[in-house]
Amino acid sequence: MEIVQSVRWSDDGRAVRIIDQRALPGSEVFRDLATTDDVCDAISTLAVRGAPAIGIAGAMGLVVAAASDAGRSRDALLERLRSAAARIRSTRRTAVNLGWALDRMLATAEQADGSPDRVVERLHDEATAILEEDRAMCRAIGRFGADLIPDGARVLTHCNAGALATGGIGTALAAIYTAVEQGKRVHVYADETRPLLQGARLTAWELGRAGIDVTVLADGAAASLMQRGFVDLCIVGADRIVANGDVANKVGTYGVAIAARRHELPFYVAAPTTTFDPRTARGADIEIEQRGADEIRCGFGMQTAPATARVHNPAFDVTPADLVTAMVSDRGVHRPPYDFARGVR
Amino acid sequence: MEIVQSVRWSDDGRAVRIIDQRALPGSEVFRDLATTDDVCDAISTLAVRGAPAIGIAGAMGLVVAAASDAGRSRDALLERLRSAAARIRSTRRTAVNLGWALDRMLATAEQADGSPDRVVERLHDEATAILEEDRAMCRAIGRFGADLIPDGARVLTHCNAGALATGGIGTALAAIYTAVEQGKRVHVYADETRPLLQGARLTAWELGRAGIDVTVLADGAAASLMQRGFVDLCIVGADRIVANGDVANKVGTYGVAIAARRHELPFYVAAPTTTFDPRTARGADIEIEQRGADEIRCGFGMQTAPATARVHNPAFDVTPADLVTAMVSDRGVHRPPYDFARGVR
Repeated sequence: MEIVQSVRWSDDGRAVRIIDQRALPGSEVFRDLATTDDVCDAISTLAVRGAPAIGIAGAMGLVVAAASDAGRSRDALLERLRSAAARIRSTRRTAVNLGWALDRMLATAEQADGSPDRVVERLHDEATAILEEDRAMCRAIGRFGADLIPDGARVLTHCNAGALATGGIGTALAAIYTAVEQGKRVHVYADETRPLLQGARLTAWELGRAGIDVTVLADGAAASLMQRGFVDLCIVGADRIVANGDVANKVGTYGVAIAARRHELPFYVAAPTTTFDPRTARGADIEIEQRGADEIRCGFGMQTAPATARVHNPAFDVTPADLVTAMVSDRGVHRPPYDFARGVR
Repeated sequence: MEIVQSVRWSDDGRAVRIIDQRALPGSEVFRDLATTDDVCDAISTLAVRGAPAIGIAGAMGLVVAAASDAGRSRDALLERLRSAAARIRSTRRTAVNLGWALDRMLATAEQADGSPDRVVERLHDEATAILEEDRAMCRAIGRFGADLIPDGARVLTHCNAGALATGGIGTALAAIYTAVEQGKRVHVYADETRPLLQGARLTAWELGRAGIDVTVLADGAAASLMQRGFVDLCIVGADRIVANGDVANKVGTYGVAIAARRHELPFYVAAPTTTFDPRTARGADIEIEQRGADEIRCGFGMQTAPATARVHNPAFDVTPADLVTAMVSDRGVHRPPYDFARGVR
């Protein structure tokens, strides 16, 4: 099975090589991010997206930022790192992974002994460790999640929680990839996921590339698909899971969860431990990123709404914990009542 | 208040003049349909759409079909009418109005006395009557529906059930237009309504043109908008309402209804009596039109899903009667339990 890798080091190890997700599914464009500007631009324009993947890109991006300053003093380097981290952090606010990865990298830099060059080397190792840990977490999520997917299952997913969203084989899609590797037959229904169509463009692309059957539908068609008996279960990723189990994920997820409940279908959320945020008590406390009006008014280079129309365009929504049948992390399958106030155990 | 008129006679009364809804909101293109081919093409490509409007366009289209044959025998004319009606009827199958209007026109032709020219004249009058009756029904729906809309209401709607969907001021939007005419303040949230974006392109356009505040959102954002307390009620149109009160409407309507129930918000359906179908018992008996895969795969002239991906693209879904707080017709407001087995009374 050929599963894409969305973020890695460039061949010389000095830049962050991503597959530019804006160009999918039309063409496969790989891009090397060689400056802090490149990294910020790639994250904010969703060239790289998905909570785990932007955490990894952010961590690797700090190495890029540091490397260009390695000749200076240790203090200047640390100052430059803090400044770059603040800029990268501000690109996207809802996912917890980006802040987590940047904090870990800054702590590494502060604790590192030796010359600036040595600090940069240490940061390179740490970013690589974050990437490798994510790959391992994806595999673990896949193993635990595959147990929830019966042979012959018809699985609805929303947005892209796949290889393109992580350093490894994904979260929600990891469960599907692993189930298929185990010999199970799986058919995936992918909500197209307006406004940016990550389901149609990305999930359908990466599953198709791996040889898995996938059918794309408009977001509004998911509820009637369930009503007509075509769906056995739903599984989605998460951008942030807070202490009480409320889940922030791509806008539209909440509607899928409500419809799944109406049809008594399991609704699963898959995410690595890095996506859990014990310090935020409830979903209502999560800051929801509002994106630009043009994603709705002319998202495809066409005028799709009057130029003067107001637009409501939140990137995420919050699914209350009571609608989630189970959560899958790299530590196992978690059932209600959820309590992540001390993290995932 | 300036409300658009979507379908009417051309200036010489020999063609059906429509505003081409495919060109909205970018430009206002009026098109004269002068042959049966023109009429079929306009209906099947959604240049004219909305259950009442396509009924009117179909009825007026039969006049166009007949007029070109008026010199021949009465039998030849009736044969030509039946053939044209069959072709027009086959363009769209879910809405009840089209079949209803064509049947009424055929019955008129069969019962008409006199020469073929006289039959055509009679058909012209009958089609005009269908248009005028629709305009009156829209006004009545508006009056009854406005009573359900409090001053200051924030109203969510899906697709376009407005002037563009009817011969008059719409159905769901008639309630809003009338409430505003009564001096109430109303803010409308319009689901963009993938795949063809009738909410973003048409509802936002016609409301904006009439000076009514409107905010467009992706379909997936509706549930979280309700969750955050921004919606007071939902009102939509219908393509077919069957005997037990189940409602076929644009795909995505069912998801809105489920979300409204979760948030204990009123969910209203507005439709003229011509949309009620007493002869169909339940929603499960409604034939749901499947539309082409390219509306999902490259609906905006861009490749939005892999060319090889399968697509599920139903035009409509069925909202069970139990989710509908009340229905508004030109006869009044109907509350559960619904029983339309003998029509609307």
